[in-house]
Amino acid sequence: MPENEVIRVISRPTGIPGTEHFQLEKQPLAELQPGQIRVCNEWLSVDPAMRGWLADANNYASVKVGEVMRSLCVGTVIESTVSTYNKGDRLMGWFGWQTCATVKPEAVVQKITATDLPPSLYLGVLGLNGITAATALDKLGSPRQGDTVVVSTAAGGVGSCVGQLAKTMGCRTVGLTSSSEKVQACYEAFGYDHVINYKTDNIDQAIKAACPDGVNVYFDNTSGSISDSVMQHLAIGARVIVCGTASIPSWDPPPMGPRVNRILLTRRARMEGFILFDHQDTYASYVEKLEQLVRDKKLTYREHITDGLHTATGAIAQLYRGENLGKRLIRL
Amino acid sequence: MPENEVIRVISRPTGIPGTEHFQLEKQPLAELQPGQIRVCNEWLSVDPAMRGWLADANNYASVKVGEVMRSLCVGTVIESTVSTYNKGDRLMGWFGWQTCATVKPEAVVQKITATDLPPSLYLGVLGLNGITAATALDKLGSPRQGDTVVVSTAAGGVGSCVGQLAKTMGCRTVGLTSSSEKVQACYEAFGYDHVINYKTDNIDQAIKAACPDGVNVYFDNTSGSISDSVMQHLAIGARVIVCGTASIPSWDPPPMGPRVNRILLTRRARMEGFILFDHQDTYASYVEKLEQLVRDKKLTYREHITDGLHTATGAIAQLYRGENLGKRLIRL
Repeated sequence: MPENEVIRVISRPTGIPGTEHFQLEKQPLAELQPGQIRVCNEWLSVDPAMRGWLADANNYASVKVGEVMRSLCVGTVIESTVSTYNKGDRLMGWFGWQTCATVKPEAVVQKITATDLPPSLYLGVLGLNGITAATALDKLGSPRQGDTVVVSTAAGGVGSCVGQLAKTMGCRTVGLTSSSEKVQACYEAFGYDHVINYKTDNIDQAIKAACPDGVNVYFDNTSGSISDSVMQHLAIGARVIVCGTASIPSWDPPPMGPRVNRILLTRRARMEGFILFDHQDTYASYVEKLEQLVRDKKLTYREHITDGLHTATGAIAQLYRGENLGKRLIRL
Repeated sequence: MPENEVIRVISRPTGIPGTEHFQLEKQPLAELQPGQIRVCNEWLSVDPAMRGWLADANNYASVKVGEVMRSLCVGTVIESTVSTYNKGDRLMGWFGWQTCATVKPEAVVQKITATDLPPSLYLGVLGLNGITAATALDKLGSPRQGDTVVVSTAAGGVGSCVGQLAKTMGCRTVGLTSSSEKVQACYEAFGYDHVINYKTDNIDQAIKAACPDGVNVYFDNTSGSISDSVMQHLAIGARVIVCGTASIPSWDPPPMGPRVNRILLTRRARMEGFILFDHQDTYASYVEKLEQLVRDKKLTYREHITDGLHTATGAIAQLYRGENLGKRLIRL
């Protein structure tokens, strides 16, 4: 009988998930049941959101102890009892951290039909990251030509897309990132107008200098002290997109920070949380739009790839240490 | 020569403005110049927002040291060189804390034409408070039938209108207030479905019990610990209207509180600041709507009146101590 290799969650972390919260296991593959599809995974995704799935039992995508780690993957159908998916189809979906997934059709996010683009992109610039960037920037940020758009984690999977998409909309883009290597990528690969290294620059002075007319759109993946500085410089009518909280190691109990109410009030600013799952109805149309931008070389990307299932367990913690440059992927 | 009695700002408070920040003065009235209107004030308004006008030089309506205290008033024209305003017209506008205001037409917010309603209402339920409540609830809160709407300062000038307007929209209303007298007013005068005394109840348990399906709209005038509790119970897609920050004595430096980012993210909630000055285009239409609700006895109000200009200087601090029941007014 063929074997499946899986990464199982063995305890619920309160902070950043590390190798100690997972276990690599082999298990036999049962015979395929009616209504099931079997997918051989080629690419696994590693996302900052995984911390929330693991840490919080009330999270929108909570993973239970004992389950295979939840993740988006790209793979090819090797066996199917479902008429809409055939052997050889390449799919992106919730197949989990394992070599071979046996799933129902609901797990499939999309069939990958484009053959001119690398399949791994459907986990990054054409997947959760890119579509999150495009949908949130568009629907919550409502950027107008000439707006100053500030992006935290500017070189990251989501941030790098936000910066580039904002440029296509005629905005000035200001990126916040954490190393000189990433500063260089922000300028050279992602076309930011201005980049701030928040580990070496005086962030408050740097934001003020980079945004003389204030910040119209702030796309935040960090929370914490970086955000506290940006919030001080919001323009009247600013839109703050709360897309992630990467700089806060634990929310139990919630950490303290400067209250934002007075800023929101005096600037008549809006701060709003975004989760892509709420926007399934527009997912496919944003994929098509971004595919075209990739083909037109208006949307570029970086991938940070490691080989082998075993490299996944430490990868979430690496993200939170800022060690990745671009979309973090596991190649099987 | 006739005399004018004025309240002048003599120092900029960092916290709550008190009698020590103002000075009562008499001064002669100069001859009316072309383009000016002279209004004899009958009613002066006292508003929580005044703290911000005084404390923060960058506030949208900052008052400088040496100026007559900025305030909305109702008065009657006694002399005019402007064709649109005639002797005997009753006006509501920015006439300041003084017995007799000499102003340009820009200071006028509206001419009061209804003769069947008490003029003081145009400083309360038909003025800044009522129109703030109606505009912010409608445009930022987007209440839907069946929504649970939570209101802080539930018995106050703005809050009491919000509660009643939300009821007319088919919402369940939950009020937060600070004394048994105000709890009674919330139930009997303002028709709240549920009222919480945040000084005596366990606020967290009380909100949970009053809002079993979560809070859809939170209309906040307080910031601070009351808000911290309400925020914990936001429903998915909740709208938080930041209309005031009455429970925070000073924003310099900004006080610390639990960070809200994770709540906004997981609940896909929106938090937005509101200032009525941004919505002048719809002011008159909301006045008309509320006049009709008052006539139909669907919108009631309480007024807390003291007599004499000298009673104004301590009145802001009284508001912040929660000593008023209803709209705080000075009758001249």
